[in-house]
Amino acid sequence: MLIFGKMAPTSLTARFGQSFAPASLRAYLAEFISTFFYVFAVVGSAMASRKLLPEAAAAGPSSLVIVAIANAFALSSAVYIAANASGGHVNPAVTFGMAVGGHINVPTALFYWISQMLASVMACIFLKVTTVGQHVPTYTIAEEMTGFGASLLEGVMTFGLVYTVYAAGDPRRSSLGVIGPLAVGLMAGANVLAAGPFSGGSMNPACAFGSAVIAGRFKNQAVYWVGPLIGATVAGLLYDNVVFPTQDPDSVRGV
Amino acid sequence: MLIFGKMAPTSLTARFGQSFAPASLRAYLAEFISTFFYVFAVVGSAMASRKLLPEAAAAGPSSLVIVAIANAFALSSAVYIAANASGGHVNPAVTFGMAVGGHINVPTALFYWISQMLASVMACIFLKVTTVGQHVPTYTIAEEMTGFGASLLEGVMTFGLVYTVYAAGDPRRSSLGVIGPLAVGLMAGANVLAAGPFSGGSMNPACAFGSAVIAGRFKNQAVYWVGPLIGATVAGLLYDNVVFPTQDPDSVRGV
Amino acid sequence: MLIFGKMAPTSLTARFGQSFAPASLRAYLAEFISTFFYVFAVVGSAMASRKLLPEAAAAGPSSLVIVAIANAFALSSAVYIAANASGGHVNPAVTFGMAVGGHINVPTALFYWISQMLASVMACIFLKVTTVGQHVPTYTIAEEMTGFGASLLEGVMTFGLVYTVYAAGDPRRSSLGVIGPLAVGLMAGANVLAAGPFSGGSMNPACAFGSAVIAGRFKNQAVYWVGPLIGATVAGLLYDNVVFPTQDPDSVRGV
Amino acid sequence: MLIFGKMAPTSLTARFGQSFAPASLRAYLAEFISTFFYVFAVVGSAMASRKLLPEAAAAGPSSLVIVAIANAFALSSAVYIAANASGGHVNPAVTFGMAVGGHINVPTALFYWISQMLASVMACIFLKVTTVGQHVPTYTIAEEMTGFGASLLEGVMTFGLVYTVYAAGDPRRSSLGVIGPLAVGLMAGANVLAAGPFSGGSMNPACAFGSAVIAGRFKNQAVYWVGPLIGATVAGLLYDNVVFPTQDPDSVRGV
Repeated sequence: MLIFGKMAPTSLTARFGQSFAPASLRAYLAEFISTFFYVFAVVGSAMASRKLLPEAAAAGPSSLVIVAIANAFALSSAVYIAANASGGHVNPAVTFGMAVGGHINVPTALFYWISQMLASVMACIFLKVTTVGQHVPTYTIAEEMTGFGASLLEGVMTFGLVYTVYAAGDPRRSSLGVIGPLAVGLMAGANVLAAGPFSGGSMNPACAFGSAVIAGRFKNQAVYWVGPLIGATVAGLLYDNVVFPTQDPDSVRGV
Repeated sequence: MLIFGKMAPTSLTARFGQSFAPASLRAYLAEFISTFFYVFAVVGSAMASRKLLPEAAAAGPSSLVIVAIANAFALSSAVYIAANASGGHVNPAVTFGMAVGGHINVPTALFYWISQMLASVMACIFLKVTTVGQHVPTYTIAEEMTGFGASLLEGVMTFGLVYTVYAAGDPRRSSLGVIGPLAVGLMAGANVLAAGPFSGGSMNPACAFGSAVIAGRFKNQAVYWVGPLIGATVAGLLYDNVVFPTQDPDSVRGV
Repeated sequence: MLIFGKMAPTSLTARFGQSFAPASLRAYLAEFISTFFYVFAVVGSAMASRKLLPEAAAAGPSSLVIVAIANAFALSSAVYIAANASGGHVNPAVTFGMAVGGHINVPTALFYWISQMLASVMACIFLKVTTVGQHVPTYTIAEEMTGFGASLLEGVMTFGLVYTVYAAGDPRRSSLGVIGPLAVGLMAGANVLAAGPFSGGSMNPACAFGSAVIAGRFKNQAVYWVGPLIGATVAGLLYDNVVFPTQDPDSVRGV
Repeated sequence: MLIFGKMAPTSLTARFGQSFAPASLRAYLAEFISTFFYVFAVVGSAMASRKLLPEAAAAGPSSLVIVAIANAFALSSAVYIAANASGGHVNPAVTFGMAVGGHINVPTALFYWISQMLASVMACIFLKVTTVGQHVPTYTIAEEMTGFGASLLEGVMTFGLVYTVYAAGDPRRSSLGVIGPLAVGLMAGANVLAAGPFSGGSMNPACAFGSAVIAGRFKNQAVYWVGPLIGATVAGLLYDNVVFPTQDPDSVRGV
């Protein structure tokens, strides 16, 4: 597991060395695989809805159910399979919050980000190629909404998601940790059902980034970065310092 | 965990003191966060359905699936994340039943209620603001039904929900406790599927109250209070005294 | 827990005495509560679909999703809450199979049946009364099907369900037992999705009986008894004697 | 459990002897039962959708939800019930990958395959007979897609599924193993939501084979064999040798 307690200050070189240890390389690969399958399911299910409903593309309640269930199912299993190798972030916002909270060092977090971004772009390319150029949908916000409102919505939902990630990975909750990956996925699915038609319900900058790169459409991209990164950071700090204050700063954390 | 066994009679001052202990304050915050995300998902998913189906607002079977799944997913994760801090009530009816059964003292229960109500109102305000004044739906009962019938329906469903909460938090069930939060969420989702088009399927006074405050529509509000509070109390008393009689009155209870 | 290993022959009086022990009475109550909420969700969700789709009553794919999810969610939590008190049968076919296999004595099994039947009838009456005389749907088989074919279908599906109940309650599977109630519910839900439009997907004589009593329509009722009782018995015998032969006949079994 | 670590070279006779040991015969039966109910739910739910939507056969978003949920629910419980007897493969691609990785010997793997194929064919015959000759649907690929693209899609999805099977059965993950069968089912369901309208979302050669035999339509059958077998092998080798390298080659593996 690559989630450390607050670290003693070390030289930059030592930190970079740690980022290339075999366990770290395995963690990057695990993040890549999990994020790939998460983005595959989320973006793929939106493409599937669109294919089945060409006239009212992605705007029916069935599409909302499809995307939300895909999100919940895929995130649960993606977090599950990466849990022991990388802590199961599967989301740059989670990694960011963990870095701010000192649970992962910054160089390692950067490699997590690269793995996640790369996985997301690869998943979207893969979908586009195998479906012979089917349109890759991007996250959009409802017409009447402002970018600020959408950022706020995405931020608050990411707060909920990251708070659940922290709760799921807290070793003090003993046996309840077992269903942690399910709780994370269910929280994501519930949020998508609520916010899907408004802000898109991304809560994951990698997912928004990958689909935007392939579709070549970066409108409102900031919405899916600013809100989630702030929400994730606030969630982590609140969990660590207020709701379940850490007695032992060296305790290992992770799903 | 803030759920106590039957307490020895103590002075009112001592009880109030206990209600301001750090662990209690954390419990209120945990209830606030969990209830916020639960109400956000339930009310938000109803708003999402309405946005996608403007002509037949919230009256199609797809909407029922959306709201029921949101309920099940959100309640499972909301109970999960609050379990170790507050016992994971997320529902004034649960807190009421626990207070009547002596598992939580009355002043503390009051603060639980305030946290839950406040969270629900805040979640509805948040939804209204970020979606730029989208209509916030309230729970309604079917035209042909009476208020008494709807109260009965809500009461019986809340009985089922609270009975599940008690079973989930019973330490004598050992390892089965692990999936407790899931069982609670699934019971709620199943009940919504059955009663959604009849009484609304709230089972949670906070959720009904928050949406009513923001929509400014208190018609039939009593339905979502009288039934659930009675149902929760009966469930608690039956579980404690008949189905699984407590041998040790001091045993700690909670998810 | 009321599920015994193969019992030494005892006098009829002794057996009846056992059936009135406090633990047994609690088990009947637990079966009543669980079966009530299971039937409430299954029949109620079919009524909810019908209300939302009056023109094409209960014949659309959305209705299938609603009923199947209600089945899966409700059965998971119903089995969960009764697990420690009665073994979580919630189904006369399960009780029948357990009695044939010697895991529960015959008088006790009879009281289980009475509790389950009564709970089902009460749930249907409750639904009919609170919804002000809404039509209570009964299980029906597709026009082109024969009663024999439908019995076969129901029997095979009940085999799968009861086999899962046995696997879920097998103490030799150690920690996997924890998610047993979920596995039972998911198996039921999957079967409903496959057979709903053909034989109705009951797998539970109590559920078929209760709705038939209230609707006053017993056509094809035999389909929901013959198949399930045979299927349950075969599943139990196969599990006990072939797939996981019991080394110790006195081992306690139950979810 | 029939999943062995890398085996010392033994004579062919000894290996065949092992394949007829009582534990092995029980494993074949367990695979038969689990695969039967998995294929029953997957193919049956597609037939159910078709019956409810005769005009736009199996092409609506509701059908996608029905088949995906049936897949997730049925695979979770199928893996669950076979876990202790056969390791819960329920899929020739999983067995193939396990054989290549040395976790199961080749003769035993062949009998696993025979059990799985036979179960799939039997499930489809059973569905066809009991539904009085209802059309059995086969997996098809979208018009615009090439066989190569569809193989790639099925292969990558099977990679994800088998990777999850390996993670679920890894004894080093301790308590997380408990929800393994759920993670496997959820990964399958998420993949179906993404790829259903494109390549069909089989990820299971037995399922594709059984329905093709009964429908007498083997078009594109290779798609459901080549991709999955390669994907499964790569997943197994990657998991064993790169992400979680096995320290102890004799460690037992299985859900």
